[in-house]
Amino acid sequence: MERIPILKMGDVLLVTIQVDMHDQLALALQDDLTEKISHTGARGVLIDISAVEVVDSFMGRMIANIAAMARILDAQTVLVGMQPAVAITLVELGLTLPGVRTALNVERGMALLLAEVGSPSRSLLGEADGDGQG
Amino acid sequence: MERIPILKMGDVLLVTIQVDMHDQLALALQDDLTEKISHTGARGVLIDISAVEVVDSFMGRMIANIAAMARILDAQTVLVGMQPAVAITLVELGLTLPGVRTALNVERGMALLLAEVGSPSRSLLGEADGDGQG
Repeated sequence: MERIPILKMGDVLLVTIQVDMHDQLALALQDDLTEKISHTGARGVLIDISAVEVVDSFMGRMIANIAAMARILDAQTVLVGMQPAVAITLVELGLTLPGVRTALNVERGMALLLAEVGSPSRSLLGEADGDGQG
Repeated sequence: MERIPILKMGDVLLVTIQVDMHDQLALALQDDLTEKISHTGARGVLIDISAVEVVDSFMGRMIANIAAMARILDAQTVLVGMQPAVAITLVELGLTLPGVRTALNVERGMALLLAEVGSPSRSLLGEADGDGQG
């Protein structure tokens, strides 16, 4: 069975959706993604939908579900690369994607996540260095 | 027609191959990628094939072609995420992927590219700062 690959880049997991989502694939993606968040301790999830030309309510619900699951696992989700026509369709369908933030492209989404999440290990090290008691 | 999205991350373009490649799609990817290298001035190309379970000689030739085109446009190509079975198949087929470097995953591939390519603007700035005549 085909699976959607999840790429780890630092504290962020990147998912690129290129194929039509159906039930099985969506469930597999949810399983894989939650597993990978738990396993890697990722703090952010970037979902790129630049190749998606049609979004229906199923896809909208799947993205909202993934974002909700990620949030419970302490990871934030940013949806990037949405085509203009898809944005129009989403609003016309009344799908507001609650709890999902969006960015124009992967670079901006990554910047958004890094600004929010930061690099925990580095900030901890920074505090230890800067605020030492010695 | 479906197209494979090309994600820009700094000086690197990231391509994730999730679907079976056929002639049209491979040609479209070559067009899009060379266009994008030229347009963005990217110095590196990461091709992730972690979702690819079967590689045949067509796929091998396509990857070698993309790497050759990228090289002419002054960008280096790194192939990442290859599954063990695919590596076995490639060697058994006698496909050595000349001119293409590989890395285990996206993070290592990105590190490899950044180490080779660096950030040109930053290194230029660094030289100007460090080697000033004032």
